Amino acid sequence: MRSDLRPFFAPAGVALIGASDNPSKLSHGILRNMLAYGYQGAVYPVNPKNKSIFGLTCYPDIRQVPDPVELAVIIIPAPAVPEALEACGERGIRAAIIISGGFKEVGPEGAALEKRCLEIARKHQMRLIGPNCVGTLDLHTGLNTTFIQGVPAKGGISFVSQSGAVGGGVIDYLRNKGIGFATFASLGNEADVTETDMIEYLATDPNTRVIAAYVESIRDGQRFLRVARTVTRHKPIILLKAGRTEAGARAVSSHTGSLAGANEAYRAAFIQSGVIEVNTVAELFEIATALDTQPLPQGSRVTIITNAGGPAALASDSLAAHGLQLAPLAEHTRQALRAHLNPAAQIDNPIDMLGGAEPPDYAFALTQALQDPNVDAIFIILVPQALVDPAEVARHIVQAAQVATKPILACFMGEYSVGQAREVLHQAGIPMYTFPESAGYVLGAMQRYARWRQYPLAQPIRPEGCQTEEAAAILSQFASRQVLGEAESRLLLAAYGLSLIPGSFARNAEEAIEAAEKLGFPVVMKIVSPQVLHKSDVGGIRLNLRSATEVHQAFDEMMTHLQNQLPHAQLEGVLIEAMAPAGHEVIVGMRRDPNFGPVMMFGLGGIYVELFRDVAFRVAPLTRDDALGMISETRAGRLLSGFRNQPVADLEAILDAILRLSSLALDFPQIQEAEINPLLVRPKGEGALVLDCRILLEHGTANNL
Amino acid sequence: MRSDLRPFFAPAGVALIGASDNPSKLSHGILRNMLAYGYQGAVYPVNPKNKSIFGLTCYPDIRQVPDPVELAVIIIPAPAVPEALEACGERGIRAAIIISGGFKEVGPEGAALEKRCLEIARKHQMRLIGPNCVGTLDLHTGLNTTFIQGVPAKGGISFVSQSGAVGGGVIDYLRNKGIGFATFASLGNEADVTETDMIEYLATDPNTRVIAAYVESIRDGQRFLRVARTVTRHKPIILLKAGRTEAGARAVSSHTGSLAGANEAYRAAFIQSGVIEVNTVAELFEIATALDTQPLPQGSRVTIITNAGGPAALASDSLAAHGLQLAPLAEHTRQALRAHLNPAAQIDNPIDMLGGAEPPDYAFALTQALQDPNVDAIFIILVPQALVDPAEVARHIVQAAQVATKPILACFMGEYSVGQAREVLHQAGIPMYTFPESAGYVLGAMQRYARWRQYPLAQPIRPEGCQTEEAAAILSQFASRQVLGEAESRLLLAAYGLSLIPGSFARNAEEAIEAAEKLGFPVVMKIVSPQVLHKSDVGGIRLNLRSATEVHQAFDEMMTHLQNQLPHAQLEGVLIEAMAPAGHEVIVGMRRDPNFGPVMMFGLGGIYVELFRDVAFRVAPLTRDDALGMISETRAGRLLSGFRNQPVADLEAILDAILRLSSLALDFPQIQEAEINPLLVRPKGEGALVLDCRILLEHGTANNL
Repeated sequence: MRSDLRPFFAPAGVALIGASDNPSKLSHGILRNMLAYGYQGAVYPVNPKNKSIFGLTCYPDIRQVPDPVELAVIIIPAPAVPEALEACGERGIRAAIIISGGFKEVGPEGAALEKRCLEIARKHQMRLIGPNCVGTLDLHTGLNTTFIQGVPAKGGISFVSQSGAVGGGVIDYLRNKGIGFATFASLGNEADVTETDMIEYLATDPNTRVIAAYVESIRDGQRFLRVARTVTRHKPIILLKAGRTEAGARAVSSHTGSLAGANEAYRAAFIQSGVIEVNTVAELFEIATALDTQPLPQGSRVTIITNAGGPAALASDSLAAHGLQLAPLAEHTRQALRAHLNPAAQIDNPIDMLGGAEPPDYAFALTQALQDPNVDAIFIILVPQALVDPAEVARHIVQAAQVATKPILACFMGEYSVGQAREVLHQAGIPMYTFPESAGYVLGAMQRYARWRQYPLAQPIRPEGCQTEEAAAILSQFASRQVLGEAESRLLLAAYGLSLIPGSFARNAEEAIEAAEKLGFPVVMKIVSPQVLHKSDVGGIRLNLRSATEVHQAFDEMMTHLQNQLPHAQLEGVLIEAMAPAGHEVIVGMRRDPNFGPVMMFGLGGIYVELFRDVAFRVAPLTRDDALGMISETRAGRLLSGFRNQPVADLEAILDAILRLSSLALDFPQIQEAEINPLLVRPKGEGALVLDCRILLEHGTANNL
Repeated sequence: MRSDLRPFFAPAGVALIGASDNPSKLSHGILRNMLAYGYQGAVYPVNPKNKSIFGLTCYPDIRQVPDPVELAVIIIPAPAVPEALEACGERGIRAAIIISGGFKEVGPEGAALEKRCLEIARKHQMRLIGPNCVGTLDLHTGLNTTFIQGVPAKGGISFVSQSGAVGGGVIDYLRNKGIGFATFASLGNEADVTETDMIEYLATDPNTRVIAAYVESIRDGQRFLRVARTVTRHKPIILLKAGRTEAGARAVSSHTGSLAGANEAYRAAFIQSGVIEVNTVAELFEIATALDTQPLPQGSRVTIITNAGGPAALASDSLAAHGLQLAPLAEHTRQALRAHLNPAAQIDNPIDMLGGAEPPDYAFALTQALQDPNVDAIFIILVPQALVDPAEVARHIVQAAQVATKPILACFMGEYSVGQAREVLHQAGIPMYTFPESAGYVLGAMQRYARWRQYPLAQPIRPEGCQTEEAAAILSQFASRQVLGEAESRLLLAAYGLSLIPGSFARNAEEAIEAAEKLGFPVVMKIVSPQVLHKSDVGGIRLNLRSATEVHQAFDEMMTHLQNQLPHAQLEGVLIEAMAPAGHEVIVGMRRDPNFGPVMMFGLGGIYVELFRDVAFRVAPLTRDDALGMISETRAGRLLSGFRNQPVADLEAILDAILRLSSLALDFPQIQEAEINPLLVRPKGEGALVLDCRILLEHGTANNL
């Protein structure tokens, strides 16, 4: 049941419950805003203490408000909100914004109040925004349910914010800047409507061309992933995620557990869903404006047109830092520029027309660049010169840009002299930035997003031969355990079709010799004990045992040593395994994130995983591209793909191992962490073998000895 | 001969050669600026075509200009400049700014003209700024020799720019923003006065508290390093380096050659000299303002005071990303906050006083934070609220900040509502930023700089026992060679006291067996050929030869194989070396940079150096801290310092190897590249051994087979 959110932005009528005639009250400001921006629907103040406010009849109770009313905005003390909501429900209102604070954010009592509000809303099939929020804004219908002073220009950006303050600050900053908004929504505590609901709604809003969001947490990560993956096929989502600082240390029981934090889950989800993640508020809107007003680039080759070398150098640096190239201009473009521009001008890219460049020079160079098939995007720089009018340059650019099908961005460096030019450019839908460094992150984001749209939208893959029932039986056998060591984990991985290094469990020296003889010498011996997680750290691994005698001796030594060293450990026996063939060691791991579910990790294996942090993450379920992306994101991936004449490794076998482990994690929510380290990768066509592994169950913290 | 540059900023009188009464000329704008900003010295227009401009007597020739005149500003066509300069010299003027373009930047003819100007200047002991520049500005004397419209506020920042355009754009942007300048200088082609000269001068200018610079290249890197290291002891230098994109590929002949580009030289020099490097123009001035107006922090513990959670979360993220921590508030601070603030306020750090926070609340929280011994710096955030006046909050902050000895920075998010607050704060010397993300890079830079000032200024180290004459003799023996392989390089390294794996050269199988028997089996055999640089790639290394027979056989096989594979290679013989003991493999390398001289590299060794890029760089000569810094900057360094219970490696031996190789490079400029890879590092106290090495001489490009 996800009803349409349209009444929050385009209701036929809106009631303000708690409207006040006292200008020092926030509710007064809200009513003023409801009337100030051209909203054509009915506005009804509700307050038993007043007869009329701003000349509008003030109703004592929501039940008495006449039709049409589709939205209630509630700003009364928290304890009174449930009753007001109930009344709204009875009145047939299906959308309410609770501005009031005093709910979940103040403690358990407030949380109970919030829960009641949600129950009342559900009963009446009513959708709620808030509580503890700043309201909504629709620049196209003129609805303004906030008390923020002023609004941005009308345009195609819709901004969803989990912080009302960030919304307010942004609007205060963007007023008069010509950055165009379609809608704004502050979501507060998200008792009902979440960021994902808003994204789903905005995807269908014809006025919204770009969805921008400030997000502190995403509770239903899997749903976000599904929704965002679909929406970004036709509308960009740009997102600023706060709270990247990990609060406190997690209980760490594996490399994956130590490396795959909440941030990694978010980051992976954004990559997998084509969401453009940004680092700052400024980037959020610089990129949003470009996506709102300009076409996507068809490639990564950029031309810089400038009247000064220094700023062009800074722009070039930032382009390179974001994976873009300076376009190699076509010969005819160079000839045309040479013929028309100042003879001292630099007609390579950057096209530096020097300080004397006149408005027609800008128009000429822009026209040439637009026609050049080697050019995918254009970045125009102007530094104020004493004798050139920036606004006139802007007008010439606008004129030349009329036929453009490539993105054009401008940087008029400064502020005092370029205000009028900004107005000219922004009215024509050409974003103008203050500093040349914007070139890189704006065009980089546009180009990555354009590429994302070109990938076909793939489905997650589940490999064949995952024996769920067998795995369930094994897990129920170890239900009381928190940690499954290699011996037990091997059984689960085998059930899901992973290839293991040949080996078997032996309880005593005799069984060990028998196992070794079956495998053929030399063999490896590894301790099996629920208390030993890092076998090599305690002397629980012996390599290259070449005879029955050596196996016997090794067994006795290992047991004696470990009994002395770890008197409380249960030493159940040993694993006897074949010696590993040559190959590269990688790690494949999984950590279950509370918001996103299983987060998969791939990277360079061995004992230095945490030292090198050469790892990549994706949220399961995975598409083939997701899994391939993990590999190619790492240096390990480059190594395996034939770096420095090395033989290409069996990437398909890694892919298969990642997908099998992710299927196991998806099928069994009690698995909290799982780690294959190392997975030994053989040359192409020869597969990959699990050399060691471990699994953590439920809320297990390892008895890490 | 580096005379004082004071006449460029505070001359007793200034002549403008090429002054014009035509407002469409740049020289007209310059004259207007010379008169517009309170400059108290004499101003003399010089132009044979005019009698007077702006009511000033216009002189036909510089020779007729009366005293006092200490500075000539020249803006006439380039070909006429030498004669004008000559006249200035004869007139006794010792400082000239050549604004005119048409010199080195336009080609060889212009370069010749520029050279003549420099010769004339030298003859008359005259200093030159320019040509092809925008001039100078001194906000304290009021001198303005530029044609830029407007000036920034008066303050302590001096800005040196190798791009006049960047200077002009910045000034246009900063006008009316309350960011205070002491001086500005555009250096143009730097025929004479360079960025380093300016830094040296500004270090002595009492009005300059912070030196900010935009730099495209530093020609005398060694001098820059010496000067900057000294200046930054008492004045911060903040630097934006453009041109970080490497132009074209270098001829690559070693890992060091491939990794140690020009950028790495600059980056290393900035680290070694305490220069604060920034990434954007905005950062340059955000950091400069903070350093101009606020004291340095004593540590890295920051308190955030805010009226909203979202922006505080963004600030916290950025603090963490720049190595700063949220201060754990003292118990008495928490109690005081709890007692005075809104009961729902968050009194942990960030101190979130919620949306209703009043001006006195800000003052109270600030006072508490200033008194808290756990707090090193304070970041105050305000988001505009409907019922709170930001300017009043600013006034309360200014009041409470009067007793401050800790840095205080503010972010009033927005623009429309916070303009007056910005004025209040900036007048009181409290920097105010627009977005919370500034917290991290500004306070991070301040804190790193504070730490730099606390380090004692050390002298470069030259290890004992570097036998320069012996090395010279060896080098002269191989003077015709471009590449020295392991066999020859070993001789040089031995002369400079590096420890080598025991080994000796053998021309044939018999000598090889003899050498092996002397060393003791097993041994390693390596091909010696001027044409073979990557021995292992061509099968030129055999390990673990255990007997005379095996040595003989290996020799024959290797020669046959290589004669077939590389028919043109001279196979001079083999090196017979001891098998390496256990240890970590690191790389120590050197590349000679055209601007900075020898750039040293340290990192993780082996064949995957370029894959992992776990390397650090410093410019020689090195202090002990420089060399230690290289080690600790890398993950290899962490590994060697005892990661995961590994034994600590012999860091002193690495240090020694780095210093010896750097001494060799400093002593012999014909060495272009040198590389020890691997250097085998043994546990602490057991030294480090050169296992392989190579050296490139002069303009040598390797015959890399």
